[in-house]
Amino acid sequence: MTTLPRVTIWNEGRHEKTSAKVKEVYPDGIHAVIASALSAKGLDVRTATLDEPEHGLTVEVLDKTDVLVWWGHMAHNDVNDEIVNRVYERVMGGMGLIVLHSGHFSKIFKKLMGTTCNLKWREIGEKERLWVVNPGHPITAGLGEYFELPHEEMYGELFDIPTPDELIFISWFAGGDVFRSGCCFNRGMGKVFYFRPGHETLPTYYVPEVQQVIYNAALWAAPSGGPKVNFGHYPEPLEKVD
Amino acid sequence: MTTLPRVTIWNEGRHEKTSAKVKEVYPDGIHAVIASALSAKGLDVRTATLDEPEHGLTVEVLDKTDVLVWWGHMAHNDVNDEIVNRVYERVMGGMGLIVLHSGHFSKIFKKLMGTTCNLKWREIGEKERLWVVNPGHPITAGLGEYFELPHEEMYGELFDIPTPDELIFISWFAGGDVFRSGCCFNRGMGKVFYFRPGHETLPTYYVPEVQQVIYNAALWAAPSGGPKVNFGHYPEPLEKVD
Amino acid sequence: MTTLPRVTIWNEGRHEKTSAKVKEVYPDGIHAVIASALSAKGLDVRTATLDEPEHGLTVEVLDKTDVLVWWGHMAHNDVNDEIVNRVYERVMGGMGLIVLHSGHFSKIFKKLMGTTCNLKWREIGEKERLWVVNPGHPITAGLGEYFELPHEEMYGELFDIPTPDELIFISWFAGGDVFRSGCCFNRGMGKVFYFRPGHETLPTYYVPEVQQVIYNAALWAAPSGGPKVNFGHYPEPLEKVD
Amino acid sequence: MTTLPRVTIWNEGRHEKTSAKVKEVYPDGIHAVIASALSAKGLDVRTATLDEPEHGLTVEVLDKTDVLVWWGHMAHNDVNDEIVNRVYERVMGGMGLIVLHSGHFSKIFKKLMGTTCNLKWREIGEKERLWVVNPGHPITAGLGEYFELPHEEMYGELFDIPTPDELIFISWFAGGDVFRSGCCFNRGMGKVFYFRPGHETLPTYYVPEVQQVIYNAALWAAPSGGPKVNFGHYPEPLEKVD
Repeated sequence: MTTLPRVTIWNEGRHEKTSAKVKEVYPDGIHAVIASALSAKGLDVRTATLDEPEHGLTVEVLDKTDVLVWWGHMAHNDVNDEIVNRVYERVMGGMGLIVLHSGHFSKIFKKLMGTTCNLKWREIGEKERLWVVNPGHPITAGLGEYFELPHEEMYGELFDIPTPDELIFISWFAGGDVFRSGCCFNRGMGKVFYFRPGHETLPTYYVPEVQQVIYNAALWAAPSGGPKVNFGHYPEPLEKVD
Repeated sequence: MTTLPRVTIWNEGRHEKTSAKVKEVYPDGIHAVIASALSAKGLDVRTATLDEPEHGLTVEVLDKTDVLVWWGHMAHNDVNDEIVNRVYERVMGGMGLIVLHSGHFSKIFKKLMGTTCNLKWREIGEKERLWVVNPGHPITAGLGEYFELPHEEMYGELFDIPTPDELIFISWFAGGDVFRSGCCFNRGMGKVFYFRPGHETLPTYYVPEVQQVIYNAALWAAPSGGPKVNFGHYPEPLEKVD
Repeated sequence: MTTLPRVTIWNEGRHEKTSAKVKEVYPDGIHAVIASALSAKGLDVRTATLDEPEHGLTVEVLDKTDVLVWWGHMAHNDVNDEIVNRVYERVMGGMGLIVLHSGHFSKIFKKLMGTTCNLKWREIGEKERLWVVNPGHPITAGLGEYFELPHEEMYGELFDIPTPDELIFISWFAGGDVFRSGCCFNRGMGKVFYFRPGHETLPTYYVPEVQQVIYNAALWAAPSGGPKVNFGHYPEPLEKVD
Repeated sequence: MTTLPRVTIWNEGRHEKTSAKVKEVYPDGIHAVIASALSAKGLDVRTATLDEPEHGLTVEVLDKTDVLVWWGHMAHNDVNDEIVNRVYERVMGGMGLIVLHSGHFSKIFKKLMGTTCNLKWREIGEKERLWVVNPGHPITAGLGEYFELPHEEMYGELFDIPTPDELIFISWFAGGDVFRSGCCFNRGMGKVFYFRPGHETLPTYYVPEVQQVIYNAALWAAPSGGPKVNFGHYPEPLEKVD
């Protein structure tokens, strides 16, 4: 993929409508801040939200999406199964997917993981420090050895996911917990990246390192141009069988 | 786990009822042959089939099951979703699961994998040779460097599964295909092993190496006695947070 | 492997001779405490130290060793290359190896990893909490979700090792660091487990959870009875080639 | 890395001098054919051979090398240990390394793997078919589901390497063997790709798919711009320790 990926930022958008605090931090929505950051870095970005028709994820939109970024929380169950299946089939076909923070409990992430995706959590705004444990990986481009978020919601182990194909970040939390905060998964022809930070009441998505990671992940998750794969009945062997 | 695992062999059992050929090869069902082999090696074995109440997988049966072996094919869609979810929750809680052959398309396996589990196939009875590629793994105990099945259905790559946590066997097929034939996956607290061979019209489950692999996998997949894990809200940090 | 593994505990043994503090904590040596713990759990245990002939690792001793436990620090370079190669060849042939704490810089561990095995460290006796991140793994048998060491030397990321084949523990340190503290690697026919804790001036090896982990790892790392593998020239193909 | 990587193709170059057959197939050396292919695809390419001063791998050359491609065979032991260590340190620091065919037994590859890197082999010119088993990976860009080499030397399992971090190709051989033919490894900050084909008497490096794979691997293995990592003593904790 020599051209830059086309990215769609999906946001549930419910907190922005129901919480004054969230509206203050993200007046145009979490998606707007992420979209602005990726646009500034040169990507072709659009946004979509739950309350749009088909949640904004029409066939036409997905046809123009190389990488989908997903933020959701309180309305996971309001996401239509048909749309979840549509996104799932796109990932199977090669579309990249970046799942943020509370998206660990989204239908699409759980369907792709095959586990409960459960974890421990605590919301006292403690310090988080994300350590790079895979410094040769492109998702770490431009970062230092670690970066800090002065106040974040805590997610703690056990994080009930399959073993990540590549583990990029481990978080240290002031309250005594650790977390696998940046996890790569191969699913079908697609690449999936889970990135932990991003509580809705905190200005995490304005942090340059957080924006850099999402940008790097979009480049990494974009389709790679590999083979078109076929399945099913192949009655004729490639080699002569006695 | 110092005691031997209690194993339940589940078989759809439809082919045995509808195909004279299958009935000839497995007069008492595929499950009976596997059960007999594992019993002879000292395991505590029971069987269950689709047509029993609750498919034979009642809460009581699963309470006494450390490892569940699964063979299904034409009736995947007849398996009740409630039973699938029950088995899934047991795997999340630590029960081992061994999925055989056409079980790659079972509801439970697809749910645990998060991918299509699709593949190529051909049924001309060609030779299969399974090569050990992880000779330090307990699932290979007692085997040689490879073993052969003179006639098997072919399954060929791409096998659309997540990258296995451990790859044990790679199959060579006379018709020109290869296949990842023995694959270990961690899911929740449970261990899952997919083992390719076992077409219903062929006497594969009588082959000593095939029986040995299923036995080894049962020992490997049994619960390990690890921690009871808790999830959810932990409002009190383990460490004092400023 | 149905019988219990025969374990040899190797300890450099230099600190015990040169430091009054270490001698106070481990009057008979670190190896004696570990050996006593494993014996009490029923394993067949012997010890060996640097200053014995051939460092105590003669062909005869290794012939009776299923799993070798390794503690070394200041004298890594005094270990004879011939003995390192002897141990290496045993691991290639299936002997298990458990490398403890400062053994990360031993010749044998670096040779098996192929990387620098470097890390960050600090010796102020801060609190360490080891979180289980793979609760289905046999090395976690009998543990809780985490265990704590009130005072330990800190090892921090980046830990320059290859990606572990299985990651079992992640440590949280009071000073703000994290570490991959329990790491499984397959090398040749052998299994290698690196376990972080164990600074020589601290009573870490008296901690029941630490003893339990070493015991579990010995069971896990013991040879599995897999195939005898052959290499080299095979001029005759298994199948007829046109 | 937005700019294209600078690639150095290293070839032992002994077969070209000693074998009329090899000289006929590769009159200017294997390195010349690979260099020409990568240049034609737009990379900045140079070559180096064993018989040059410092084997052509001076500090100056490596300073300008993002990815090193390695072909060697009969003269593995003639490669100076100092040069091997120089290359090793570059890989630890982030330089990519692509090891071809008989390079599996090179000093640098064995040092990076930590295993014997042994395998089975046979030289009767049988058919090899390389199946893609990771179609989302960038190393498969532009390929079909498989590609064939009508005549190649056979390499067969067991290939005694650590479990690859990513497995890309599995080879089928007419004589009945299989092989993990495309293997990715992370080592230090660097990425390593082993690619099986390329016997010196056969025109394998003229095959478009083979050239495409080496090109893709060069893009993949190039340094990613991740953090500069520091190791050693950090006496001051990042957080206040009681």
